[in-house]
Amino acid sequence: MGKRILLGREGFQDVHAMVFVGFGFLMVFLQRYGFSSVGFTFLLAAFALQWSTLVQGFLHSFHGGHIHVGVERVLPLTPPPQVRDAGGSMTIHTFGAYFGLVLSRVLYRPQLEKSKHRQGSVYHSDLFAMIGTIFLWIFWPSFNAALTALGAGQHRTALNTYYSLAASTLGTFALSALVGEDGRLDMVHIQNAALAGGVVVGTSSEMMLTPFGALTAGFLAGTVSTLGYKFFTPILESKFKVQDTCGVHNLHGMPGVLGALLGVLVAGLATHEAYGDGLESVFPLIAEGQRSATSQAMHQLFGLFVTLMFASVGGGLGGLLLKLPFLDSPPDSQCYEDQVHWQVPGEHEDKAQRPLRVEEADTQA
Amino acid sequence: MGKRILLGREGFQDVHAMVFVGFGFLMVFLQRYGFSSVGFTFLLAAFALQWSTLVQGFLHSFHGGHIHVGVERVLPLTPPPQVRDAGGSMTIHTFGAYFGLVLSRVLYRPQLEKSKHRQGSVYHSDLFAMIGTIFLWIFWPSFNAALTALGAGQHRTALNTYYSLAASTLGTFALSALVGEDGRLDMVHIQNAALAGGVVVGTSSEMMLTPFGALTAGFLAGTVSTLGYKFFTPILESKFKVQDTCGVHNLHGMPGVLGALLGVLVAGLATHEAYGDGLESVFPLIAEGQRSATSQAMHQLFGLFVTLMFASVGGGLGGLLLKLPFLDSPPDSQCYEDQVHWQVPGEHEDKAQRPLRVEEADTQA
Repeated sequence: MGKRILLGREGFQDVHAMVFVGFGFLMVFLQRYGFSSVGFTFLLAAFALQWSTLVQGFLHSFHGGHIHVGVERVLPLTPPPQVRDAGGSMTIHTFGAYFGLVLSRVLYRPQLEKSKHRQGSVYHSDLFAMIGTIFLWIFWPSFNAALTALGAGQHRTALNTYYSLAASTLGTFALSALVGEDGRLDMVHIQNAALAGGVVVGTSSEMMLTPFGALTAGFLAGTVSTLGYKFFTPILESKFKVQDTCGVHNLHGMPGVLGALLGVLVAGLATHEAYGDGLESVFPLIAEGQRSATSQAMHQLFGLFVTLMFASVGGGLGGLLLKLPFLDSPPDSQCYEDQVHWQVPGEHEDKAQRPLRVEEADTQA
Repeated sequence: MGKRILLGREGFQDVHAMVFVGFGFLMVFLQRYGFSSVGFTFLLAAFALQWSTLVQGFLHSFHGGHIHVGVERVLPLTPPPQVRDAGGSMTIHTFGAYFGLVLSRVLYRPQLEKSKHRQGSVYHSDLFAMIGTIFLWIFWPSFNAALTALGAGQHRTALNTYYSLAASTLGTFALSALVGEDGRLDMVHIQNAALAGGVVVGTSSEMMLTPFGALTAGFLAGTVSTLGYKFFTPILESKFKVQDTCGVHNLHGMPGVLGALLGVLVAGLATHEAYGDGLESVFPLIAEGQRSATSQAMHQLFGLFVTLMFASVGGGLGGLLLKLPFLDSPPDSQCYEDQVHWQVPGEHEDKAQRPLRVEEADTQA
């Protein structure tokens, strides 16, 4: 199956900076949901790393009654062996996005406009969210490269990701100004769509995408993502009854699917000449003559369909699970509100100063 | 004394991210003391690294009239040779906590309630503090591993710390909800007690603590620390006249002492079989047959007592020094207030909007 030398200590740290700082702060843009965003990301990440130690341990590294651990084992990333998806355009972004969107469809709240006054950002919450954006941006090359072959393969992955991110950032600024009122930029686009370049090369960045390919893909992803925020998110709610507060469809869904398709294309073009010695680590089955490039491309495409199917079924079941009556959820008027889960400082002063109309705590849970 | 190969470039950067970003932002939770928290941490860290270059240089690397410097020498960490304490449960956390607490006892201000309105957080200052928490969390494994033997020893230290932190995070969330009003979480606990797992394995993470031991220790530390914030901090002020604004007793004091005792236990269980070749780098005196594991454990325990003694005497003397009449300190009504030391933007607007009753700057210093 080709030797995969996994990330070392720095890669380990980089991915953690991305998960804990990047994801944690990206979602603090909501004016009264910052504690929940950063706090629950913290909790979930701390839980997931213990859970994945057990699950991966029992599945992959259970020897003589013990689970073997090591810095290269504790990341919650397990690429399927038949399909290449090192940075997870499919297994992470597409899966996560459509799982969440289908789940959100099941949990659709027709009365959510009762919480509309809390759904936007305020000046400082938008600045906080940029901490998340910037951290995700700078560590994304390490993230995509984390599971690739050490040396040339890892360098190629990091550079392709880097150029794609740079291009998606430019595409986002350009499109945001173009579709913005009076040519002004929208912070939501900059916080999110600028990162679409990292998603779109998740599958192909370890392949011979070339810098030109990476730049093109990144620019395309940034523009598609920005247009998604501007035009498609409202339709997603009004027509499809999916409330996508964070715009995961724009940052992870569409760029993830595009990234999977880009992977199909680039895998289909793989030749011994282009990869040289590196073919073994990227496409071991092609290198060993067990599979043609076209066949690899078909497997990649099939991987996308499997991902979408599992995501939809899983998200649907997850949504039904969360609808079980004994699992309390906050009322429609209490969404996007930290006070449901947190003791918020100065609650009473805030009530006086802000137009938030926060109900008393005893109406909750 | 056993070869200690010190941290390389990444370890050096990781520890600095922890000190400058982590400690700097952890204490910005006070609503009007954020400039001082991040600013004075910056100043002190920049001073300390120069001071330690001189002190360590004259003590350890003074050759031919020159001080030898290098990335492995500029960290202010000098473990005593007879006792193992790589991550500083004793020399850093216990020492720092009790030094500060005794100093705070000497400087006790009975009239501090005059500044009580500024002692809490506001929504955004709590979010800022989470930057500190997250950075401390992700870089703590590197911090504990910085002075351990390269290779297996360093990986073991990092993984033990990682699992301990993950468990203390879960323990903190669980306990915080359990003791919180209406089952709601308290941001003070999440910001601080979630990190107690890093403190509690400071001594033992380089030893054969095992992942199970690390998880257990971390969970215990998170719960003890959370309970400390909830129940013991108020008693510390009312009964012991120690004003512990940041809760260092809960994050560094108790978990530090627990960590030292855990080190006593794990050192006492050391065998040639369990450590193999690694014994030389962790317990050189045991490896060379100069000392038994029990004797090492006794030395560790003695190290804790010496630490507590130096911390108490040092803190007491430091407090008396700060009470010298020519060293002005702000009046009781001006504590937790950046304006004493900083030009704060929009001072007059703030005065109008908030109930802070800030006196004019000319009453200060």
